[in-house]
Amino acid sequence: MKTLLSTALKHIDGKLYILNQAHLPWQEEWIECHSPEQMADSISRLQVRGAPLIGISAALSLAKYVEQGANEKEIYRAAELLKSARPTAINLAYCIQKQIKAYEEQKDLQRIIKVAEDLFEEDQKLCKDIANHGFDLLESGDSVLTHCNTGGLVTTGIGTALGIIIHAHNHGKKLHVYVDETRPLLQGARLTTWELKKAGVPYTLICDNMAASLMRDKKIQKVIVGADRIAINGDFANKIGTYSVAVLAKHHNIPFYVAAPYTTVDPNCLQGSDIIIEQRNAEEVKGFVSDYQNLLWSCEDALVYNPAFDVTPKEFVTAFIIDKGILKPDDLRYQFL
Amino acid sequence: MKTLLSTALKHIDGKLYILNQAHLPWQEEWIECHSPEQMADSISRLQVRGAPLIGISAALSLAKYVEQGANEKEIYRAAELLKSARPTAINLAYCIQKQIKAYEEQKDLQRIIKVAEDLFEEDQKLCKDIANHGFDLLESGDSVLTHCNTGGLVTTGIGTALGIIIHAHNHGKKLHVYVDETRPLLQGARLTTWELKKAGVPYTLICDNMAASLMRDKKIQKVIVGADRIAINGDFANKIGTYSVAVLAKHHNIPFYVAAPYTTVDPNCLQGSDIIIEQRNAEEVKGFVSDYQNLLWSCEDALVYNPAFDVTPKEFVTAFIIDKGILKPDDLRYQFL
Repeated sequence: MKTLLSTALKHIDGKLYILNQAHLPWQEEWIECHSPEQMADSISRLQVRGAPLIGISAALSLAKYVEQGANEKEIYRAAELLKSARPTAINLAYCIQKQIKAYEEQKDLQRIIKVAEDLFEEDQKLCKDIANHGFDLLESGDSVLTHCNTGGLVTTGIGTALGIIIHAHNHGKKLHVYVDETRPLLQGARLTTWELKKAGVPYTLICDNMAASLMRDKKIQKVIVGADRIAINGDFANKIGTYSVAVLAKHHNIPFYVAAPYTTVDPNCLQGSDIIIEQRNAEEVKGFVSDYQNLLWSCEDALVYNPAFDVTPKEFVTAFIIDKGILKPDDLRYQFL
Repeated sequence: MKTLLSTALKHIDGKLYILNQAHLPWQEEWIECHSPEQMADSISRLQVRGAPLIGISAALSLAKYVEQGANEKEIYRAAELLKSARPTAINLAYCIQKQIKAYEEQKDLQRIIKVAEDLFEEDQKLCKDIANHGFDLLESGDSVLTHCNTGGLVTTGIGTALGIIIHAHNHGKKLHVYVDETRPLLQGARLTTWELKKAGVPYTLICDNMAASLMRDKKIQKVIVGADRIAINGDFANKIGTYSVAVLAKHHNIPFYVAAPYTTVDPNCLQGSDIIIEQRNAEEVKGFVSDYQNLLWSCEDALVYNPAFDVTPKEFVTAFIIDKGILKPDDLRYQFL
């Protein structure tokens, strides 16, 4: 497998590494991934996270397994294991299936490696295309609200929603970013601030419940978020709290954009209600949970609701910023069916 | 001074105690308050919190100082010290001024004790009246969303918003409570869950950004929150995040009630824009801050927005539940001017 380099995933000197995102921003620790089992574990523990990066990391890990001499039966078993590491992320299943299909066409395991390399490089290009399309939607002077983390940490390129912002900043637009901390896992507070700081983009960190009053005070001109799965009717699933931001944006007449690569659009998913929402561990809400530090601040036996995602109906979406272009929700079906 | 008992403040066997709320829910620690200096310190460190309780605790501490033999000069100095412990809490100044005025009318220091006792008992009655009025608004089977903490911990009685819920539960209504964790200080996660558990009311703890999708799924039938200050036109200030909940409730056609004693209505405040919003320490947003435990999870130099309160315009309020009765926002002026 060739040398591949990105913010949080790299293949170099014949070794596959992930940046342990569970330890950010406290520590920048690269972990060598020796096996699909380890990668599946890293994915489920959120050491690797973000829909595109999960898929490509899994693909690279399957490719590495081929290099290590795995046979067909072992590859199939590893593919199933990797696909089951996170149920909602469509990219994961997509990447692995693409590898398996390529293998089956010619019964050549080397094709699994080639597909992984292509996926890595394609994602960089997708990010670039998304950033270029999104560029025109931002004006100098805009303050942009974003939710969760959608930058170089979740793709092999510049990112999706955050990639647009960083790209526009790099090309001279004066932007300010309001960063939702994004409870319970605090991807905004921990990761987006880390990325924006590295990119030199001015930002303000807020708690999720503060966006509404900023909107009322006209401090936010645009909202850009990512997506975990986009149904063909324009409904989409994204990090919990996204729907809340969408309702608030609509109420305050603020444009609400969703940035994602074409791979996030699921032509087999007709509408948002078809998307199954993963419920996560109660400990995440009862306090702060990470690989690095833990804290419990509510009653130990507190009952908790902890969906990983919510679904935002299409009527809240001003436009999707896809690598193929800027699409209104109702136009997705013409592009993807 | 007579024996006075409440959830977080008591006078018994000639001694004054506060429940250290900065250590909840980890530890239930009663602290004996020996002096006004100590009480002022406890208030500024949030060991005593919640507008009504702060005022009454300060009043009891001044009364205790009279019992200890303080002279007029010492009382005046202690009164100033107590008032400055949290300059923005209107109840604090109100309670102390009421004591000083009573003293000055007859130059009788014993009046300071009597006023403290009256304030303690009046607050219990106000809570009871609020709970009785609110009772009719809740139906068996309702799930009620609440924000922040408004129960027995912030009053000498059953509470305001939470008091209504607990009272209705105690009188046979089957209710379920969704508790907003209420970032950044997590009064919902730490304190409201603690109170609901003690009261035996079923609840589910959620992150602030999860309420919207629960509303869309029709899991929430009513919202009840407290208030820190109510303007005479019906706008009101409350814990940050309240306005966000109000917008979401309106969008989903869910009744939004505000419970507070008459003392929270400020006839001198004409509208919400007249309310000055206190900005708090950035550390609270960059991580979790308490007397008990601390954790930093974002970049140390992250820029932060941290308003203690937000203002919700009157058009979002279905009704105010005041001890005097249930009032539409536009009716406040007839009752209070």
